[in-house]
Amino acid sequence: MNNASIITIGDELLIGQVIDTNSAWMAQELNKVGIAVKRRVAVGDVWDEIWSALDEEQKHADIILITGGLGPTADDITKPLLCSYFNGEMVVNEEVQEHIMNIFTKLKRPIIDRNLKQAEVPSTCTILFNKRGTAPGMWFTKANPTDINGPAKEKIFISLPGVPFEMQGLMIEEVIPKLLQQFSFPHIAHRTLVTAGVGESFLAELIKDFETNLPTQIKLAYLPNHSMVRLRLTTSGNNKTQIENEVHKQFETLQHLVKDYLVTNEDEPIEKVVAKLLLKNNKTIGTAESCTGGYISHLITAMPGSSAYYKGSVIAYAYDAKENLLSVNKTELETKGAVSESVVTQMTKGALKNLNVDYAIAVSGIMGPGGETPDKPVGTVWIGVGNASEIVTQKIHFRFDRQQNIKLTATTALNMLRQFILSHS
Amino acid sequence: MNNASIITIGDELLIGQVIDTNSAWMAQELNKVGIAVKRRVAVGDVWDEIWSALDEEQKHADIILITGGLGPTADDITKPLLCSYFNGEMVVNEEVQEHIMNIFTKLKRPIIDRNLKQAEVPSTCTILFNKRGTAPGMWFTKANPTDINGPAKEKIFISLPGVPFEMQGLMIEEVIPKLLQQFSFPHIAHRTLVTAGVGESFLAELIKDFETNLPTQIKLAYLPNHSMVRLRLTTSGNNKTQIENEVHKQFETLQHLVKDYLVTNEDEPIEKVVAKLLLKNNKTIGTAESCTGGYISHLITAMPGSSAYYKGSVIAYAYDAKENLLSVNKTELETKGAVSESVVTQMTKGALKNLNVDYAIAVSGIMGPGGETPDKPVGTVWIGVGNASEIVTQKIHFRFDRQQNIKLTATTALNMLRQFILSHS
Repeated sequence: MNNASIITIGDELLIGQVIDTNSAWMAQELNKVGIAVKRRVAVGDVWDEIWSALDEEQKHADIILITGGLGPTADDITKPLLCSYFNGEMVVNEEVQEHIMNIFTKLKRPIIDRNLKQAEVPSTCTILFNKRGTAPGMWFTKANPTDINGPAKEKIFISLPGVPFEMQGLMIEEVIPKLLQQFSFPHIAHRTLVTAGVGESFLAELIKDFETNLPTQIKLAYLPNHSMVRLRLTTSGNNKTQIENEVHKQFETLQHLVKDYLVTNEDEPIEKVVAKLLLKNNKTIGTAESCTGGYISHLITAMPGSSAYYKGSVIAYAYDAKENLLSVNKTELETKGAVSESVVTQMTKGALKNLNVDYAIAVSGIMGPGGETPDKPVGTVWIGVGNASEIVTQKIHFRFDRQQNIKLTATTALNMLRQFILSHS
Repeated sequence: MNNASIITIGDELLIGQVIDTNSAWMAQELNKVGIAVKRRVAVGDVWDEIWSALDEEQKHADIILITGGLGPTADDITKPLLCSYFNGEMVVNEEVQEHIMNIFTKLKRPIIDRNLKQAEVPSTCTILFNKRGTAPGMWFTKANPTDINGPAKEKIFISLPGVPFEMQGLMIEEVIPKLLQQFSFPHIAHRTLVTAGVGESFLAELIKDFETNLPTQIKLAYLPNHSMVRLRLTTSGNNKTQIENEVHKQFETLQHLVKDYLVTNEDEPIEKVVAKLLLKNNKTIGTAESCTGGYISHLITAMPGSSAYYKGSVIAYAYDAKENLLSVNKTELETKGAVSESVVTQMTKGALKNLNVDYAIAVSGIMGPGGETPDKPVGTVWIGVGNASEIVTQKIHFRFDRQQNIKLTATTALNMLRQFILSHS
């Protein structure tokens, strides 16, 4: 089985200034076509480090994907290094040169040497044309006598720019099709479900017998995240239908075992589960957010097509915004406080009416680090969900930091709305 | 100089189901105390892969930090592997056992074998007590004769749970203090500034002479992100004052060279720059968002203490939300369309009035993938910023995907407000 290793290059990854989202995206795409990613390595913009990563990763994998280090500025040493590693010399690629000149003509910007230098590529590579930017992708091959897993094979090295938009275009249009031409990969089958309201150990106990009796070729993984636990079954093999059937059968059993906690039997976020329910019932939604500050609204609208069911939100941090835009009673705010059942109920009602929606979510809480009172510690949140005829509220106490408390409040509120819709339709 | 390598364990990292934020956080913390991270490696839940990563990383670094793979479920093989790798046997740690039992008593949940098993640890490790969860951290040492960089040294291996909240607590309270006791690290000095409105290549041209003449011990890095480019100077050395002075001197020159594009001379996001301006001038802000769906509001409220200057937002996707909550004229909406200068101006005015704020930001655009019209392609956005006496608008065309267009619109709008505040005070 052919597998891959991803090398990401850049000092910013090693000082933690940037979170690496590229390699997760690449791994997903490779997985879809049956290429397993075995290792991911991040190294700095240091000649020896990059060189030794190239040396080492080819011992682990057949396909080595490299991102980053191809920008137009002087801290980029990746291209000259690859030229030297693959015994080439720098030559101008005319197609790339013309493309770069066209980009600058269109932008009406002066072109400088530094930009034109991007058209220089190692003579020993095949160019992967980057229509979205100036740095082309590069494809190298190398015979490798040092594979630790068996006999010598040809290794493939693919270098891509680090800009996500450009890297993704090149992966989809150039890299994946070219890899599929060259190899035949086994199929990989995944099925994932999402549970809520139950801890990882309790789930493990619940499905202990199932897990013990799983065929050895099927793997089960627990993926806890934001108060939900995803369970994933995976297998691989050459017969697509057979492995899909095998996983499907086990997945049916698993779904049944966890049915009381099941949120969805797809690998999808809670905002998508809610979106599907709303679309199916032809209903609309709006939110009234205090402590989440627009994050629930952001989750909903990050989904393409959300304008079909989402109408709007009122984010009300200040008392007067709660009064003016959500019709919350001033006296209640002053006597009960903004973080109270009474206020969150009024916020839900205000959102239903003022946004003219079928369902509303309202949240009010203290996310920290400041703002706590003796009876309302950091992490205290009131959540309300409902429609014109009924509103359900719940008080929860999260015990994490501000970012985490905001995320947990948002996913918990969306899950409460999911349960509300299911029990009221 | 002592340096570190971070190994993250988990199949979910290799199929791209989870983005690794742990190692970026760890790298930042290690950096602060002068420990340079040389490599980051992600491997799956596979015995041989983890074993070979342990073998290899100690050739590159002196301190090997491991996260993940310590949960209570059966897919975790890290602890038995570490036990075997460091020639120990599993023993029950009584302090950890008592701690686990206390947690379950408090939660009023039944305790199961699986939970108690977390109190079993390899006899060859020192326990790092995890007060936030059930899986303890583990500290191992090993003499290593195979360092590729020089003579044999003792290597340190630290295994931490993968739950960010628990890992972070252990790093701050246990790992960093223990490392500082054992080693003396050189100081690392960073200075970062942020520019907007200028491309990476143009910046590089602008500061070419500066870059060429930089002392060799000072490194310059270009970090482009969401239409802004950060420039970072770094150096390290044993004399803290001396290296800080050196970097400071060069940083002053750099700031002067890029002054026309300078957003901030700190490593901080645009929402923090705006927050500081508002606090300094004792002013408030609100937003009226269509296409960004609450993302600007989320960026502002993700900052602790934002209630001092942020009052609220209206997120208006639907026409009637724009009319009812932002007082946008219905005829204008119908004749000019929601994505127009006229509507975004009215949205800004509506936010200023209805949220009762000193400054407002309004955005309306088409983020894709659907929704485009012949004269308004995907990526078309109108942005308005202003106060009671003046409103400034701008039309921009972004050319990325939905997620990226939303983020770019948000940072561009916040930067427009920054410029507006500076030029009107």
